[in-house]
Amino acid sequence: MAYAHRIKPGTKVSLADFDPDADGGLDKEAGTRRADELGQEFGELEDLLFEAGTHSLLIVLQGIDTSGKDGTIRHLLGYANVQSCRVNSFKVPTPEELAHDFLWRVHAKAPGRGEIAIFNRSHYEDVLVVRVHELVPEPVWSKRYAHIDAWERLLVDSNTIILKFMLLIDKDEQERRLLDREKEVQKAWKLSVGDWKEREFWDRYLEAYEAALTHCTTEDAPWYVVPANKKWFRNLAVTEAVVERLRPYRSGWLERLEAVGAKAKAELEAYRAG
Amino acid sequence: MAYAHRIKPGTKVSLADFDPDADGGLDKEAGTRRADELGQEFGELEDLLFEAGTHSLLIVLQGIDTSGKDGTIRHLLGYANVQSCRVNSFKVPTPEELAHDFLWRVHAKAPGRGEIAIFNRSHYEDVLVVRVHELVPEPVWSKRYAHIDAWERLLVDSNTIILKFMLLIDKDEQERRLLDREKEVQKAWKLSVGDWKEREFWDRYLEAYEAALTHCTTEDAPWYVVPANKKWFRNLAVTEAVVERLRPYRSGWLERLEAVGAKAKAELEAYRAG
Repeated sequence: MAYAHRIKPGTKVSLADFDPDADGGLDKEAGTRRADELGQEFGELEDLLFEAGTHSLLIVLQGIDTSGKDGTIRHLLGYANVQSCRVNSFKVPTPEELAHDFLWRVHAKAPGRGEIAIFNRSHYEDVLVVRVHELVPEPVWSKRYAHIDAWERLLVDSNTIILKFMLLIDKDEQERRLLDREKEVQKAWKLSVGDWKEREFWDRYLEAYEAALTHCTTEDAPWYVVPANKKWFRNLAVTEAVVERLRPYRSGWLERLEAVGAKAKAELEAYRAG
Repeated sequence: MAYAHRIKPGTKVSLADFDPDADGGLDKEAGTRRADELGQEFGELEDLLFEAGTHSLLIVLQGIDTSGKDGTIRHLLGYANVQSCRVNSFKVPTPEELAHDFLWRVHAKAPGRGEIAIFNRSHYEDVLVVRVHELVPEPVWSKRYAHIDAWERLLVDSNTIILKFMLLIDKDEQERRLLDREKEVQKAWKLSVGDWKEREFWDRYLEAYEAALTHCTTEDAPWYVVPANKKWFRNLAVTEAVVERLRPYRSGWLERLEAVGAKAKAELEAYRAG
């Protein structure tokens, strides 16, 4: 069963259709165990992806403040090979980045073959925060959906496997998490008046997300809506989606590794035979 | 009069329609003088582009071996401000570059606002040499025309002024230039058996160029065919085309500089008034 909701291309997305509180009928213990099993499988598939060197994997994580992007990355990285896996956090653009088109800085961080890149926020901020706060005029951001589609198609045509996750929490859950931060000393660095100010734009963010998910979902670069009120379920849903996308490549990667190994062995034998 | 032939979008390009020997009815002396005048104007416009900081300029230079890309760059750079002008030569891709989509390495070198980038060879090699020598299968390179159009549109939407020049020489002129290289000691570093081997693919290169010019010409990112048998005429034609594209921006850049200056002055006066 798929716990994350994969958007079908051509669907007009309404986030009200999804329950941020969903748990797939599992309790926390069973869900955490399953997430761990899938994490192990992710680690094995990721090793194959790295060794075969024929494909790249791009995981985009988006979600409103406190939705759990950092926690999701920690879960996935717990099973990943650091050598081939890179996390890129896209913050407020620098002057040099702003002097370029909005895809320039993300393109530079696209994963090479054999590599995994996780984007903690991404080019989608240029149709999310930028749209909500009108940082550029509508005629500029409205063209970006097509630019994103074309760019992601470019990556797909270069053997990049793309998954884009929108971590969905509700407004009450966000309030709980923000208040929790104030209580815990080790979360104080995350405190920001800005977070509370941004809450006032909640509905406009949802609207911007719906537009991005509607316009930028393709068969090969789909969005997944992830119920994320429960952290253990969020980890389970994301990991499952990643594993299910990678699994079909397994046999091809193994075949390639066997062929490469056979060639190396033959060369070694020829060398030894003098 | 326009000496370079700007391709109209939607035209099926046949290079046989252009005379590589054209001289615009000028002699070398008059042509060289005019190229110098236009070069001066290019330098002024380029200063304004840099100071206004609202636009980027991308000049793509393509042409068969010995067609004069280096010489054209030397001519233009003679009038340009080094601080804002960068030449990028795209050679045989490195393993890291090959591990990415074909636009990854060029996107990283796209000019920021206020900057000029000259591409000495470019992403077009991925539909030229790559197509001629079948370095990737047809289903891969055939998709690249659309990717190029989308990427160039992205730059244009981010205020990049794009000019793409195909320097056209004929096969006899190439032979003369290759033989000249063998005679001159200071040109010996350019000698390569490969150049003579590539001549055997002359017709296939022309065919690949015609496809690129046909598929990737848009109103805002046009190709220009430049008669390049005569070096002085080639310099004149390229410089003229660049100046004619930049000239319409002049008044807007000046207005912006005036506005910025007036603001700075007002701030300074407010500061002094205490």
